[in-house]
Amino acid sequence: MTKKPGTTVKPKTRAVRASTPRAIRTPSRRAAGQAKSIYRFGGGRADGRSGMKQLLGGKGANLAEMTNLGVPVPPGFTITTDVCRTFYELGQRWPERLEPQLAQALQWLERIAQKGFGDPRNPLLVSVRSGSAVSMPGMMDTILNLGLNAKTVQGLIVKTESPRFAYDAYRRFIQMFGNVVLQVEHRLFEDALARQRAKHGAATDADLPPDALKSLVADYKTLIKTHKGLDFPEDPQEQLRLAVNAVFQSWNNERANVYRRLHDIPHSLGTAVTVQSMVFGNMGKRSLTGVCFTRDPGSGERAFYGEYLVNAQGEDVVAGIRTPKPIAALRTEFPAIYEQLYRIGQRLERYFTEVQDMEFTVEEGVLYMLQTRTGKRTARAAVQFATDFVQERLLSRHQALLRVDAEQIDQLLHPTIDPKATPRVIAKGLPASPGAAVGKVVFTAHRAVELAEEAAERVILVREETSPEDIEGMAAAQGILTARGGITSHAAVVGRGMGKCCVVGCTDITVREDERYFKVGDLIVKETEPITINGTTGEVMLGEVPLVQPQLTSSFKRLLAWADRVRRLRVRANADTPHDAKVAREFGAEGIGLCRTEHMFFGEERLPVVREMILAKDPAARKAALTKLLPFQKEDFLGIFEAMKGLPVTVRLLDPPLHEFLPNTPEDQERVAQQLGIEARALRETVSGLHELNPMLGHRGCRLGITYPEINEMQAEAVFEAACELIRDGVKVIPEVMIPLVGHPEEFRIAKRTIDAVARAVTARYRVACPYLVGTMIEVPRAALVAAAIAAEAEFFSFGTNDLTQMTFGFSRDDIGKFLPHYLKHAILPADPFMKLDQEGVGALIRLGIQQGRAARRQLKVGICGEHGGEPSSIEFCHRAGMDYVSCSPYRVPVARLAAAQAVLRGKKS
Amino acid sequence: MTKKPGTTVKPKTRAVRASTPRAIRTPSRRAAGQAKSIYRFGGGRADGRSGMKQLLGGKGANLAEMTNLGVPVPPGFTITTDVCRTFYELGQRWPERLEPQLAQALQWLERIAQKGFGDPRNPLLVSVRSGSAVSMPGMMDTILNLGLNAKTVQGLIVKTESPRFAYDAYRRFIQMFGNVVLQVEHRLFEDALARQRAKHGAATDADLPPDALKSLVADYKTLIKTHKGLDFPEDPQEQLRLAVNAVFQSWNNERANVYRRLHDIPHSLGTAVTVQSMVFGNMGKRSLTGVCFTRDPGSGERAFYGEYLVNAQGEDVVAGIRTPKPIAALRTEFPAIYEQLYRIGQRLERYFTEVQDMEFTVEEGVLYMLQTRTGKRTARAAVQFATDFVQERLLSRHQALLRVDAEQIDQLLHPTIDPKATPRVIAKGLPASPGAAVGKVVFTAHRAVELAEEAAERVILVREETSPEDIEGMAAAQGILTARGGITSHAAVVGRGMGKCCVVGCTDITVREDERYFKVGDLIVKETEPITINGTTGEVMLGEVPLVQPQLTSSFKRLLAWADRVRRLRVRANADTPHDAKVAREFGAEGIGLCRTEHMFFGEERLPVVREMILAKDPAARKAALTKLLPFQKEDFLGIFEAMKGLPVTVRLLDPPLHEFLPNTPEDQERVAQQLGIEARALRETVSGLHELNPMLGHRGCRLGITYPEINEMQAEAVFEAACELIRDGVKVIPEVMIPLVGHPEEFRIAKRTIDAVARAVTARYRVACPYLVGTMIEVPRAALVAAAIAAEAEFFSFGTNDLTQMTFGFSRDDIGKFLPHYLKHAILPADPFMKLDQEGVGALIRLGIQQGRAARRQLKVGICGEHGGEPSSIEFCHRAGMDYVSCSPYRVPVARLAAAQAVLRGKKS
Repeated sequence: MTKKPGTTVKPKTRAVRASTPRAIRTPSRRAAGQAKSIYRFGGGRADGRSGMKQLLGGKGANLAEMTNLGVPVPPGFTITTDVCRTFYELGQRWPERLEPQLAQALQWLERIAQKGFGDPRNPLLVSVRSGSAVSMPGMMDTILNLGLNAKTVQGLIVKTESPRFAYDAYRRFIQMFGNVVLQVEHRLFEDALARQRAKHGAATDADLPPDALKSLVADYKTLIKTHKGLDFPEDPQEQLRLAVNAVFQSWNNERANVYRRLHDIPHSLGTAVTVQSMVFGNMGKRSLTGVCFTRDPGSGERAFYGEYLVNAQGEDVVAGIRTPKPIAALRTEFPAIYEQLYRIGQRLERYFTEVQDMEFTVEEGVLYMLQTRTGKRTARAAVQFATDFVQERLLSRHQALLRVDAEQIDQLLHPTIDPKATPRVIAKGLPASPGAAVGKVVFTAHRAVELAEEAAERVILVREETSPEDIEGMAAAQGILTARGGITSHAAVVGRGMGKCCVVGCTDITVREDERYFKVGDLIVKETEPITINGTTGEVMLGEVPLVQPQLTSSFKRLLAWADRVRRLRVRANADTPHDAKVAREFGAEGIGLCRTEHMFFGEERLPVVREMILAKDPAARKAALTKLLPFQKEDFLGIFEAMKGLPVTVRLLDPPLHEFLPNTPEDQERVAQQLGIEARALRETVSGLHELNPMLGHRGCRLGITYPEINEMQAEAVFEAACELIRDGVKVIPEVMIPLVGHPEEFRIAKRTIDAVARAVTARYRVACPYLVGTMIEVPRAALVAAAIAAEAEFFSFGTNDLTQMTFGFSRDDIGKFLPHYLKHAILPADPFMKLDQEGVGALIRLGIQQGRAARRQLKVGICGEHGGEPSSIEFCHRAGMDYVSCSPYRVPVARLAAAQAVLRGKKS
Repeated sequence: MTKKPGTTVKPKTRAVRASTPRAIRTPSRRAAGQAKSIYRFGGGRADGRSGMKQLLGGKGANLAEMTNLGVPVPPGFTITTDVCRTFYELGQRWPERLEPQLAQALQWLERIAQKGFGDPRNPLLVSVRSGSAVSMPGMMDTILNLGLNAKTVQGLIVKTESPRFAYDAYRRFIQMFGNVVLQVEHRLFEDALARQRAKHGAATDADLPPDALKSLVADYKTLIKTHKGLDFPEDPQEQLRLAVNAVFQSWNNERANVYRRLHDIPHSLGTAVTVQSMVFGNMGKRSLTGVCFTRDPGSGERAFYGEYLVNAQGEDVVAGIRTPKPIAALRTEFPAIYEQLYRIGQRLERYFTEVQDMEFTVEEGVLYMLQTRTGKRTARAAVQFATDFVQERLLSRHQALLRVDAEQIDQLLHPTIDPKATPRVIAKGLPASPGAAVGKVVFTAHRAVELAEEAAERVILVREETSPEDIEGMAAAQGILTARGGITSHAAVVGRGMGKCCVVGCTDITVREDERYFKVGDLIVKETEPITINGTTGEVMLGEVPLVQPQLTSSFKRLLAWADRVRRLRVRANADTPHDAKVAREFGAEGIGLCRTEHMFFGEERLPVVREMILAKDPAARKAALTKLLPFQKEDFLGIFEAMKGLPVTVRLLDPPLHEFLPNTPEDQERVAQQLGIEARALRETVSGLHELNPMLGHRGCRLGITYPEINEMQAEAVFEAACELIRDGVKVIPEVMIPLVGHPEEFRIAKRTIDAVARAVTARYRVACPYLVGTMIEVPRAALVAAAIAAEAEFFSFGTNDLTQMTFGFSRDDIGKFLPHYLKHAILPADPFMKLDQEGVGALIRLGIQQGRAARRQLKVGICGEHGGEPSSIEFCHRAGMDYVSCSPYRVPVARLAAAQAVLRGKKS
């Protein structure tokens, strides 16, 4: 029933920020009052463009852009994200303007598509899809084939001459609509389907005869009536209205919220709704559907990449139900289509200067592009893309640096299988996300979270296939293994996004989640047995296979070299052993920002001496024990200073409370007492005497070295003897002694006095000059508040943001599990403050501390050595706050180098 | 050997701050270069004056002033505190200028006294005393009769015609000098004395014949030779030099340091040394020595007050060895002396506008004043003096308000014996410091500290007599009881200064410290048995006698009324029960600043229900338990609101972690599980599930109410139901609901939403209007840092400085015993930050919080409810920081009212 054409409104120019996904929220209520709610695309032109992602969602904006570029796109229109926001502001009701604009848009679409919505003879069918400014794959709901009902299905039969196709489309529509819009459990539809398969002895859905599908439509409707008391809506207008609402509501569903939280996407963005006329990849042997990338999103190779399924709907590819063919096969099967698709991909890539991830459908020999977007990629590919794009003169180096997600490249630094290992490979799947992982097998997301977070176990999540409900479990696991699905299946896409080792489509294995095992032939692997997976090769191995440290590719090195030329922040590493120091230096560390001396106390030979020191009854006995410890500490420092020659090494004096070195259980106490030749009772008494109600706020840090100055003396002696010996041998050593947990300048003064005295004595003994610094960690809030007085004495500050976060929030990191998950789930906190630096609160203290410290000492060196020192958003903060360096774990050094450069470039942009 | 008179140098005017004991340290090295080191007094004129206490010490300055006023004072001179400071700066050596100035001063003194220092025929004997700007009674050392040696003692015999007197003076000198200067143990001299007594069958020292005293001199010299290998110095110049050094050194001895720390006296003040020609109160029956006050320092009565001993040295009075006669006896025994002394007292009191504490000696009928100083007093007397002085027009009201130590008046608010009690009085001593105390008997300072601080026991320190070594034990005890000594004995003076109940000279009892009991007749009271003492009557009672709350005297009320007119800060109380609320209101509280609702959870009927709530498996079960708790909470609120009608009541929502309500030991768990009808294992699991490594930083405060909103709902319901019922009955109720431990504005927002919803529902149900506020505690550092965002939502801030101090310092109050004593002893921290607010660090956060909070909400109400709210220096800070109110324990309310007024007056002065 095509009416007279609707008026095509020329889009007004709107001030929408296009470049950043974190743009300021549009003041929707005011702007929306008169605003255009719907943007059309089709017939060779579109109202929108790719810069309007905030308003039209990534999908809608890119469909518009493709239309304008002349790329074949089925016509449709997009309801803006503004409407979604208004929908929520109005208590889940449509703004008044939407209804008439929607009617006009539908009329226009009917005209362009030359079909009628609800027309029984020539029915217009549409897809209804969500789309936000930031891609959230699989997170929100989609409905296909909307517009079908008892009458229009007949039209479809007439038109396609295929009752099978028509009823299959119809039953799929009812299933999706029933699940997404009417909230009927997916399982119920699957059961009905299974019953039909059983009844007709069909192996797969494709084997079902048309009648069975027709019966299924009736079954589905009954099912909905039974479970929801609803008649399935026959009116396409009603169907559309309900579907639009469901998409809006899907923005706020649990898994979308989880995804946004994990990916730091603002809740206020809202989703657009794109309504597009349907094309069918399942209309026979000349139809197909597929997904392709302009370059390989795993390796980064400049090779057309993707897969397709003949006679299938797009959902079949994404869901991983049938295993698709590689895109190379298309070249021989459908050379013209391949050529057209390839050219479109090249054009779009150059246009967007980004690797494109495209969905396409061929309906009876005609190619349609259904979506294009920036392709998700592995870190390796991201680095390759960035450097290749520079070589191809598509990007400048600075632009390229901003194209790589600094957090993501961490995955390049993950271990791989030791080539010398001889693992027992038990199965092979598709290599979906590179790197190797070792862990205990678990079969549910819940169990993964439980073991990983509560028992600190490394786990591998093994699933038949993953679904968005598994997100949290995937995040908690070391790696993911699925029995089904291709390299664009849910597990693969999410795994790559998370930089998590992932093997998919491993059909060799049978997963028995209910019985908690998986099977490969006769081999049974039970829950909590260890396996190893290799996301680069797809191999699955039994047991814990040794891993080796990653090698940096030449592209990566090139990118990091560019970063080094741009960044202002120095990057140091936290390293406690000569080995760690060497690794750090190889990764480009420019010094050690935190060497935790207590880690040297835990060796097998050392611990008994440490215990002797703790159990000493007087300073003399304590000194005697410390004298025995001295050679150990000195040896470590010799190794570390040697490894870092020419670079500064910050040595932190003993920090943890002494009870951490003593045994806790009665059995251990008995044993240790015997070792030390003392009575168990005496040991127990010492342990209980050292017990603290809140050890985090107890007798530790500089408080130890002040009450037991012998400890500071010994440690300073070890530092300076090691330094002097190397200096005597011509090695350049730059020791920086760091006093932990200072809260009052007097604490620093006392500790520094001891260190200076030891330094004087030792350098005199060795007759060498050893320039050194004495500084402090700023980790107690008070230290930041009285930073001027501390800086009058201290030569450097290193912000210990782990403890500073604990004390500023009043959060014990060890106990936070009782409420932080709730806080994150309900967005009471935007992120875990131990992962991302809290710039508002803790950051305010840091800024204050730097400002006051530099006011008192212009040359004060300032850094950070908490774990935030390796996290990109925190590094950007450190850059803006004017720090001199960040220090992080050795494997994080490249991340920090890149993030530090990005901080400079982002600073220039803004 | 009188030489030609030394040149008397007219004192230059010096910029010395006289009025405040905490003046800036004089830059001694520079100033001392040319400075006058010695100030003389005698012959009717003096170089110094009373305003020069910083330089001459209180004693020296007042001796100078008295000399200038024509009061009879033995001549002498004072070596300045500048010299003491220089002495320490030079590593315990004299500045060069001192030697010649001392020689000149001695020559001058010889001339004035008409005696020769070391002259065998007419020997000049001197006392050498310490004296700092702030009185530290008994803290430093004194040497009398200096100048005696084998030759001069002969001159003294000739002059006094009393070998007994001369040898007694000589042996006393050697004993004091030997102990103080040569560091020979006191005990050794006492043993030698005892041997002589035994040898001569003498009951007391006074019964020793002259020969025995002469032998004693030899014994003492041998003793010094044996123990120190030293010959006793015969040269008076040498004696003087050593004595001056010893006084300087005594400034830095352990007990002086402890005293200064306890009384907040800066270490940098230093001591002066006053050298004064001796007069003797023990020169026979016309000689005497005594101590007197111009008014009664215990009751505050306007009555000449004091005591004296005929034929005794001053030390005999102070040491409490003989029991002296009351000053009234002097009037009949020596009416002329009494009259002269009384007139001098009156004159000095009017001159200094302060009650004077004077030492005097009559040598053969001639009165000499040896010292005058501001009299220490009980709080009761301080209040009486201040109000009387206003009535006598000696002071203005504002001046009078500043004359009373706000901290000290706390003692007026201590309990007294319940008049309805029928205690068993077992002994009676002298009432030395008012108030009553109950506690377990201990016999050493060490044990007092041990039981009081470590076992949190209340103790009474019982001693034969106290000495400065006992200071810390006295501070730790509830009260002090001594068997010997008068009302000016050490125990009495220190007890009054501390505001500690004290009974002295209780000769009825025999103290057997070694056997750990005391005896009254046949009754034996052993260590840790409870007794009660009454410092107002001197009674000692067996067992724990019930005490009642103090009554405010009319003078006190008058003073507080003046304070109320001056202060700007409102004063509220922390009260958790209707009873506390009533007490608070009686003490003048203007509202409740902190009502801790969890205290309502501990009742016998309530705890099982609280436990049921904690053990609930789901929100419904939790809600059911909470419903049972509601009536209890409501009942309490009804009582509190009623008691505080018309005044605001701040109700804090549940704060402590839930595990505090559960039993910890296996036995208790067994018992409680039985009570609750659950398995012990289930209870144990809950307890261990709730266990936290750092509960201070754990799941508590608003974190509870956010994760279990049912708790907040129930508490809000109880508040508003109680409020609405009373409002309906015409009572004015002003509830202020306070959310604890907020660190992020979102936490506040969520909690407030619940409270507002409940308030709406309850007021609708009762159909009354109930204006209320919702505010938050600022106790997490982050809250102060993001105060603007919190104040955008919160209507008031109450600084919870207990937790804020814990987190700002990173000090767990429960664990601080492991290092805080060391920190205080070594002055790493100036004071316990949980006692006195740390104005520099915590204060900086408070100022920031107030400033940001008020910037966001101009009318933001701001207060403090940590324990600092009742501590005068912290209250002064709160005033300066612009708070609206302080809240403290009910008994501290009068202290806070006075301190708040003093803050205003001090602010005006500066």
